[in-house]
Amino acid sequence: MRDAARNLTLLTDLYQLTMMDGYLKNGKEGDIAVFDLFYRRNNVITYSVAAGLEQAIDYILNIRFEEEDIEYLRSLHLFDEQFLEYLRTFRFTGDVYAVPEGTMVFPEEPIITVRAPVLEAQFLETALLNIVNHQTLIASKSSKVAYAAKGDSVMEFGLRRAQGPDAGIYGARASVIGGCRSTSNVLAGEMFHIPVAGTHAHSWVMNFPTEYEAFRAYAKMYPDACLLLVDTYDTLGSGVPNAIRVFKELRAAGHEPKGIRLDSGDLAYLSKCARKMLDEAGFPDAIICASGDLDEYLITSLKNQGARIDLWGVGTKLITSADMPALGGVYKLSALTPKGGSEIPKIKLSDNSDKITNPGFKQVYRIYDNKTGKAEADLIALRSEEFDESRPLTVFHPKDTWKRTTFTDYTLRPLLEQVIRGGKLVAQMPDLAAICEYAEREKESFWDEYKRPDNPHVYKVDLSQKLYDIKNAMIAQIGENHG
Amino acid sequence: MRDAARNLTLLTDLYQLTMMDGYLKNGKEGDIAVFDLFYRRNNVITYSVAAGLEQAIDYILNIRFEEEDIEYLRSLHLFDEQFLEYLRTFRFTGDVYAVPEGTMVFPEEPIITVRAPVLEAQFLETALLNIVNHQTLIASKSSKVAYAAKGDSVMEFGLRRAQGPDAGIYGARASVIGGCRSTSNVLAGEMFHIPVAGTHAHSWVMNFPTEYEAFRAYAKMYPDACLLLVDTYDTLGSGVPNAIRVFKELRAAGHEPKGIRLDSGDLAYLSKCARKMLDEAGFPDAIICASGDLDEYLITSLKNQGARIDLWGVGTKLITSADMPALGGVYKLSALTPKGGSEIPKIKLSDNSDKITNPGFKQVYRIYDNKTGKAEADLIALRSEEFDESRPLTVFHPKDTWKRTTFTDYTLRPLLEQVIRGGKLVAQMPDLAAICEYAEREKESFWDEYKRPDNPHVYKVDLSQKLYDIKNAMIAQIGENHG
Repeated sequence: MRDAARNLTLLTDLYQLTMMDGYLKNGKEGDIAVFDLFYRRNNVITYSVAAGLEQAIDYILNIRFEEEDIEYLRSLHLFDEQFLEYLRTFRFTGDVYAVPEGTMVFPEEPIITVRAPVLEAQFLETALLNIVNHQTLIASKSSKVAYAAKGDSVMEFGLRRAQGPDAGIYGARASVIGGCRSTSNVLAGEMFHIPVAGTHAHSWVMNFPTEYEAFRAYAKMYPDACLLLVDTYDTLGSGVPNAIRVFKELRAAGHEPKGIRLDSGDLAYLSKCARKMLDEAGFPDAIICASGDLDEYLITSLKNQGARIDLWGVGTKLITSADMPALGGVYKLSALTPKGGSEIPKIKLSDNSDKITNPGFKQVYRIYDNKTGKAEADLIALRSEEFDESRPLTVFHPKDTWKRTTFTDYTLRPLLEQVIRGGKLVAQMPDLAAICEYAEREKESFWDEYKRPDNPHVYKVDLSQKLYDIKNAMIAQIGENHG
Repeated sequence: MRDAARNLTLLTDLYQLTMMDGYLKNGKEGDIAVFDLFYRRNNVITYSVAAGLEQAIDYILNIRFEEEDIEYLRSLHLFDEQFLEYLRTFRFTGDVYAVPEGTMVFPEEPIITVRAPVLEAQFLETALLNIVNHQTLIASKSSKVAYAAKGDSVMEFGLRRAQGPDAGIYGARASVIGGCRSTSNVLAGEMFHIPVAGTHAHSWVMNFPTEYEAFRAYAKMYPDACLLLVDTYDTLGSGVPNAIRVFKELRAAGHEPKGIRLDSGDLAYLSKCARKMLDEAGFPDAIICASGDLDEYLITSLKNQGARIDLWGVGTKLITSADMPALGGVYKLSALTPKGGSEIPKIKLSDNSDKITNPGFKQVYRIYDNKTGKAEADLIALRSEEFDESRPLTVFHPKDTWKRTTFTDYTLRPLLEQVIRGGKLVAQMPDLAAICEYAEREKESFWDEYKRPDNPHVYKVDLSQKLYDIKNAMIAQIGENHG
C-alpha cells in the first residue's frame, strides 16, 4: 500500500503521552484496561456503517517511535529519559476486537474494543478515533445517498473539496463501503481497486474553438464511452444539440454514445428537456448523468419531481458529510484489571444522562428472527454472560423499560470479532470488494423501516439485565466512591 | 518532512488524465493555458485566510508517475502506450503565482494562478483544489474563532474528529495560520514546530481509585504545569474541591498550580462558580480552561454571559469547519495561447451570473490608504495593465456600478507573487512562524468592520475598467461563437 512509508505513530494528542508517562510513574504498567470505541448519536441517519478498521489495524500494528520522534519529544522538555527509553521499544501487545467493516452499527455499541496494558490502550485513543470516526461518517452518509438513488449508480466525485488528501482517499474508500459504485479519485482507485469514473470538464470545452469541436474531439477518443458535459455555455441551446450532432456522427461510424452530463442549472427541468431531445433524435438509450451540489435530499427531490437522471455524481456534500461533518465517536475506559487483581468495571458519569458509559468487557449481539432472517434488535452484554438460543430471550430497552420483547425463534450473532491477539493480527482481513458485498448483505438484513430517511423506526439496542444492574449499581455508588 | 515518502501524484480526478490524453492527441501539447484558483463565496466569514500553498507547491514540484502508477493506469484500458510513455517523464515545467499564506483573500480573487502547457496546468487542478480548499477553509474558521476569543489563547484540539489523518495534521497547521496558538496534535507539532498543548483525560481520573488520588498523581508529575480536568464525576461537588485540595498541597510544596479545565455542562455557570471557589481558596491566578463542542458562536455567547474562562480548547467544530465544511474553491481556465499564436482570454458562462469567471492573465492589487495604512479595497486587473500610484485611481464594484471610489493618496500591493518559474521554485518559502506573523499583520491591516462576525461591512473587490470591458464583450459574443 502507498501508505506503508508513512509513520503516523505521533498522530496523537499530547495528553496521551503525558498520561502514559504518569501511568508508568505510578506503577500502572501492568494494569490491563478495556476501552470501547463507540458513538453516541448520528443525527443524519439512524444507523452508521462501520468503516476504517483496516487502516486502524494498520496503525496499531505499525506503531514505532523513531529516533526523530524521540528527539522531538525530548525537545518539549516534558518527558524524562526513562519515559523516552520506554517509548523507544513501545509496541502494541494487547488484544483488539472489532465489528467487520460494512456492519451496520448503532449508538453506544462498541465498534472496536481494546484490551491491553493501560499505557498501550490509552495511546491508541486519538488515532483510532480519527480513522474510524472519519470513515464511518462517510460510509454512513454514502449509505444514505445510495438509498436515495434507489438502485441508480452513484459515483463519488468529491476529491477536490475533501478536507485534505486523506479525506479524499479514505473518504472514497468509505463511500464505496456505504454504497457508491465508483470514484473519480485515481489514487483511491489504485490503492483500493475501486472502479474509477469520469469524463471531461468545462475546461475541455473551453480549450477548443467551439463546443461542437470539443465534443467531436472527445467522441473520437472514446467512441464507445462518450459522455459529454453539456452545460459549459447553454445546456439546451447549444450543449444538447451539439451532443446530438456528435452522437449522430458516432452512430454513422458504428458506435453508440453513452450520454450526457448536466452539472448546473435546474436539473429536474433540464433533464426532462434533454431526455425529450435525446429521445426525439433517436437516442433513447443515451443516459443522463447529473452532478453539482447533490446530496440525498436533492436526489430524493429530483426523483419526486420525475427528473430523468440515470447516473449520479455526488461530490462535496458526500465527501465532507456536509450536514454532520463529524461522527463524534468516543473511546472510553470500561474496565480495569490492576496487576495481580481482578477486573473492575469502570463508568464515566456526566451531567447529561445520555453520556453515561456502559461498564465492563462487553460483546454486542445482533438478534435475528429465524423466520424472516431479519435483524430485530441488538443486545449489549458482558462477555462473561452466556446465552442459550434454545431458550426464549427477553430484552428491554433501558430508556424505555416498560417495553419488553421476548424472542423465541432467534439467532444471536456476536458482532465483535477478535482481530489482534497479543499484538499480532489474527483475523483474515477482507479486501474492499468483499467488504462491499458484506455491507450490501448487512443492509438487506434490516427492514426498510429502519433505513428510510424520514421518521425511521428506531432500532432497539438493549442492555442485558446483568449489565443494566451493574451499571445502575455503579451509578448509585459513585458519589461515595469519588467524593 | 514526514510526507516526503508519500507520492500523491495520482491524487487527481480520472478526467484530468483523459483530458490530458485528449489534448495530446489533438495537438495541444504546445498550447499555454492560464488557470485561476479562487472561491466564489464563504458563507461563514467575509474574508478567507489563504493557506496550504506550501503543500500545494510541494505537490507540484514532486509530480512523478512511478512504474506502479503507469502499470495501474494501463490496467484501466483507457490509455494507449503513447500517453503512458508521455506520463513516464511528465514533470511540471510551467509558472505558478500565489498569494502568500496568511493573506486575507476575497471571493473571485485568484489565490493561485498557473500558467503552463495546457496538459500540465490541467493536471494540477484536483490536487491544488484539495489542498488549498481544505487549509484555507480551516484557517478562515480559525480566524473567526480567534476573533471571538478576543485575545485569549485558543488551542486546537480536534484531531480525533478530523476527517482523517491529513485533516488533523494540515488542519492543525491551518488553524495556527488562522490564529490558534497551539495544538494537541503531536505529529503536527513535530512537522511544523507548532507548540503542543494538553493535560489529561477523564480516563486518567478513572484509572485511580479516587479523583483526589488521580489529581495528586498528576500534580506530582507536573507540579509547575498542573491543569486538572474537573468534570469526570461532579464538577462543583467533587472536581473543583479536589483540585483545590491538591493545589493547596502543591503550594505547600513550593509550587503554584496552573488551573482547571471544564469539558462539559453549563460552562458559563460552572466557570463562574469555579472562579469563586478558586478565588476564595486563595488561587486567583489559577486559570480556567474550557473545552467541549466550542465554536466562535458559543465562545461569543459565553463571553457575553460573563463566563470566567481564560483559555479555550476548540475541537470538532474548528477542525471540520462544521457549519461550512467545504470552501468550494474552483480552478478555471482564464486564458489560452495556442502554439505560435497570441493569448486569448477565456470565460465560463453559467445560468447563474455569480458563476461567470473573470477572463485573462490577472493580478490582484490591494489598495492601501497611505494615511491610515489600512486596506480599502482590492482591484483585479490584467497583468498587462499598468497603474501609476501618483495619479488618482477610480474603481467600481461591478455588482454595484453606480458606486465609484477614487483614491488619491494610496499604495497598490500586488498580492500574487511568482513562486515557480519554468518548473523550479523561485521563492523563499517562509516557515510557519513567519506565516503566522504575516497573517497577524494582514488582519491588523483591515478595519474591524470587515472582520466582525455580525453584519460585517462587505469589502469591495473591484475589476479594472479594462477587465470589465473585456468580460462584458466576451459575454455578449459568446452566443455566436459557441452556438
